[in-house]
Amino acid sequence: MVVELINTGSELMLGRVLNTHQQWLCRQLADLGFVVSRQVAVADAGNDIREAVREALSRADLIITTGGLGPTSDDMTRELIARLLGKALRQDPALVAHIAHFFELRKRPVPERTRAETLVPEGAIVFANAYGTAAGLAMEVRPNPFRPEGKLSWLIMLPGPPRELRPMFTDSVVPLLRRVLPHPGLFVCHTIRATGIGESIVEERVGRSLQDLTRAGLEIGYCARPGQVDVRLAARGPDAERLVGEAEEIVRQRLGSHVFGREDEDLEGLIVRLLTERKETLAVAESCTGGCLSHRLTNVPGASAVLLAGFVTYSNQAKRKFLGVAAGTLAQHGAVSEAVAREMAEGARKETGANYALSITGIAGPGGGTLEKPAGTVFIGLAGPFQTVVRRNFNPWDRETFKQVAAQQAMDLLRRKIAGKDE
Amino acid sequence: MVVELINTGSELMLGRVLNTHQQWLCRQLADLGFVVSRQVAVADAGNDIREAVREALSRADLIITTGGLGPTSDDMTRELIARLLGKALRQDPALVAHIAHFFELRKRPVPERTRAETLVPEGAIVFANAYGTAAGLAMEVRPNPFRPEGKLSWLIMLPGPPRELRPMFTDSVVPLLRRVLPHPGLFVCHTIRATGIGESIVEERVGRSLQDLTRAGLEIGYCARPGQVDVRLAARGPDAERLVGEAEEIVRQRLGSHVFGREDEDLEGLIVRLLTERKETLAVAESCTGGCLSHRLTNVPGASAVLLAGFVTYSNQAKRKFLGVAAGTLAQHGAVSEAVAREMAEGARKETGANYALSITGIAGPGGGTLEKPAGTVFIGLAGPFQTVVRRNFNPWDRETFKQVAAQQAMDLLRRKIAGKDE
Repeated sequence: MVVELINTGSELMLGRVLNTHQQWLCRQLADLGFVVSRQVAVADAGNDIREAVREALSRADLIITTGGLGPTSDDMTRELIARLLGKALRQDPALVAHIAHFFELRKRPVPERTRAETLVPEGAIVFANAYGTAAGLAMEVRPNPFRPEGKLSWLIMLPGPPRELRPMFTDSVVPLLRRVLPHPGLFVCHTIRATGIGESIVEERVGRSLQDLTRAGLEIGYCARPGQVDVRLAARGPDAERLVGEAEEIVRQRLGSHVFGREDEDLEGLIVRLLTERKETLAVAESCTGGCLSHRLTNVPGASAVLLAGFVTYSNQAKRKFLGVAAGTLAQHGAVSEAVAREMAEGARKETGANYALSITGIAGPGGGTLEKPAGTVFIGLAGPFQTVVRRNFNPWDRETFKQVAAQQAMDLLRRKIAGKDE
Repeated sequence: MVVELINTGSELMLGRVLNTHQQWLCRQLADLGFVVSRQVAVADAGNDIREAVREALSRADLIITTGGLGPTSDDMTRELIARLLGKALRQDPALVAHIAHFFELRKRPVPERTRAETLVPEGAIVFANAYGTAAGLAMEVRPNPFRPEGKLSWLIMLPGPPRELRPMFTDSVVPLLRRVLPHPGLFVCHTIRATGIGESIVEERVGRSLQDLTRAGLEIGYCARPGQVDVRLAARGPDAERLVGEAEEIVRQRLGSHVFGREDEDLEGLIVRLLTERKETLAVAESCTGGCLSHRLTNVPGASAVLLAGFVTYSNQAKRKFLGVAAGTLAQHGAVSEAVAREMAEGARKETGANYALSITGIAGPGGGTLEKPAGTVFIGLAGPFQTVVRRNFNPWDRETFKQVAAQQAMDLLRRKIAGKDE
């Protein structure tokens, strides 16, 4: 079963936007047992799209394209594919009605431009778009003129905006794939997530112990990201569950308390879940991370039950006024110091009555560093029903990485404390 | 000049990480005048990488690969390419010394695994890695056995981690490209950014007026993202500046005050810049966006001069205690209401002494909606040296899109007020 993705968009090739479809679709497909073997992005240029589709049709059983179905003049996927396969485009009355209804709800006239969105190649299956005007399309290419022996391919076209593509994939494409494609066989893939440890050390600790399982068919992957290393364990076939299960046990044992989670649960998800289970609450006081920690925590549905308040206190005045940091402490130690991190955490806890409070104060850079406290220096405090803890870390990365890593370190400090996994 | 990118990584194909290299490298290359015509991602599998490299070598003058140069067993790009081109791998003593120094600084023993990172295909140019252990490599493939008439190609291999790849590209690859590639000719590309208006309306307003310029060679692209539409104007050749300049004037005139910026400046960058210029300050009080607005503002270097404080006040208690929202207002109108948005903004302004304060209170969903105030409802307040303004918006998107759009709307409200561009 060969699966390929084609993402179209000149904005991708000019580097004006991030291609989030690749990750999302690859992930959804892998969870269904279909691992994408190639992803291609090309500009909104007739020749480039046509070539990419033709090549994919010569290799793949399933091809998914994204983008190029909208109302503007650079949207040309529908028409190019219809022409490539020799299919006429016909107006679909249901789509005309859908678009009229869409704009009626929004009390706006139907833009003339949306007419292109009502055209459908003959024989195509139409996926209604619950969140926009561009329908998705699926075509069974049978016989496939670009493939040896004409073996059939499925060609699925999805709209570009993520909030339209995602529900359409889940609600319409998945049921179709289940119906028309052969069952992909057992595929098991788990990810173990560790923090506070580097990628090469991770492999040194686990690689050799996994050799026997690798020979038996286990696939291992390592992926480093800000403040985190993911170890991916995958296998196919009837033995997959056992192989991956045994490997996971070895990884957990070798990495010990560095392992914080599994699959998609990130540290913020874990913290919200742990505190919810314990019926405990948190407050957050951020200086250099400027709300990054609050933002990440509140990306988790249900965070409102846990996060009592967040303070972004860049200025000394705000640290004094809202967190009760003493003027003398600021004068004597400076805003980036162990003493201030301690008073910020204790102040946030006292002001909110939360069970725990995390504080972060540091120098995100690029400016602001000194010899003694270079840019990248950060102090992380944790106050709770115990003696306040402060850690000093050094994260000499770019501004955004610095913020993410410091937020990660703060959450890890809390995780270790409440899970009883002190360093 | 044909340029192609190849991103390797099984984690990409399994959808475990986002491919940020595509955007970043495409953007850097476009700014140098080299527009990438195809980007391909494949798994860390020998055959897939080899095929992708072979195909790219058959078409492109410049090929850049990312990933697969690290110390772990799934890093195989260096070896595969050396074998494909019939080059031996030799240990580079400078790389041995670099890696020894890297670990000495970190007071850790040199992991055995890093030995692979010291190997270099014969004839390759080595790029030192200032932020890691995996060196980059450049090879002039001359004659190129995969290309008609053996026309030469440049093949450049870069390490996967963004914080290693990015400085290496800027410091080592750009000077090399300038030296060895023909000058790409004039390429001009500007992006105009608008907010508070949909993509199809944008094209209806500007598309027809740009037809003459399009016939003369102007390329237009539209890109919709949360709370924003980007219009991209590009042209090549000696007339490029004039074409893009005239087009920009038309777009600005047609979209009026919806246009907030140009190129990469996002709303948070604009807000920080405007307030810095005016020597004014801001406070932010967030409920449903949970720090998203503070986080975005503080991603801008220099934000500390402008943002006095941010409050994340999910709970009613926090709204009362830190922002002075009256208990009666909460009881009478509910936390998601015009009255509470007003008191949050006024409270944040009063507590911090900032010139302006923005407030956001709403229902991010998925839960928490009612018939009268469905999930997606949000009230945005702005207090300043004028009568407090509150807007009610409806953003029925997923949780993260909701947060981003609401933050966008809040910043737009402030922008319009201080730029004198009231709706």
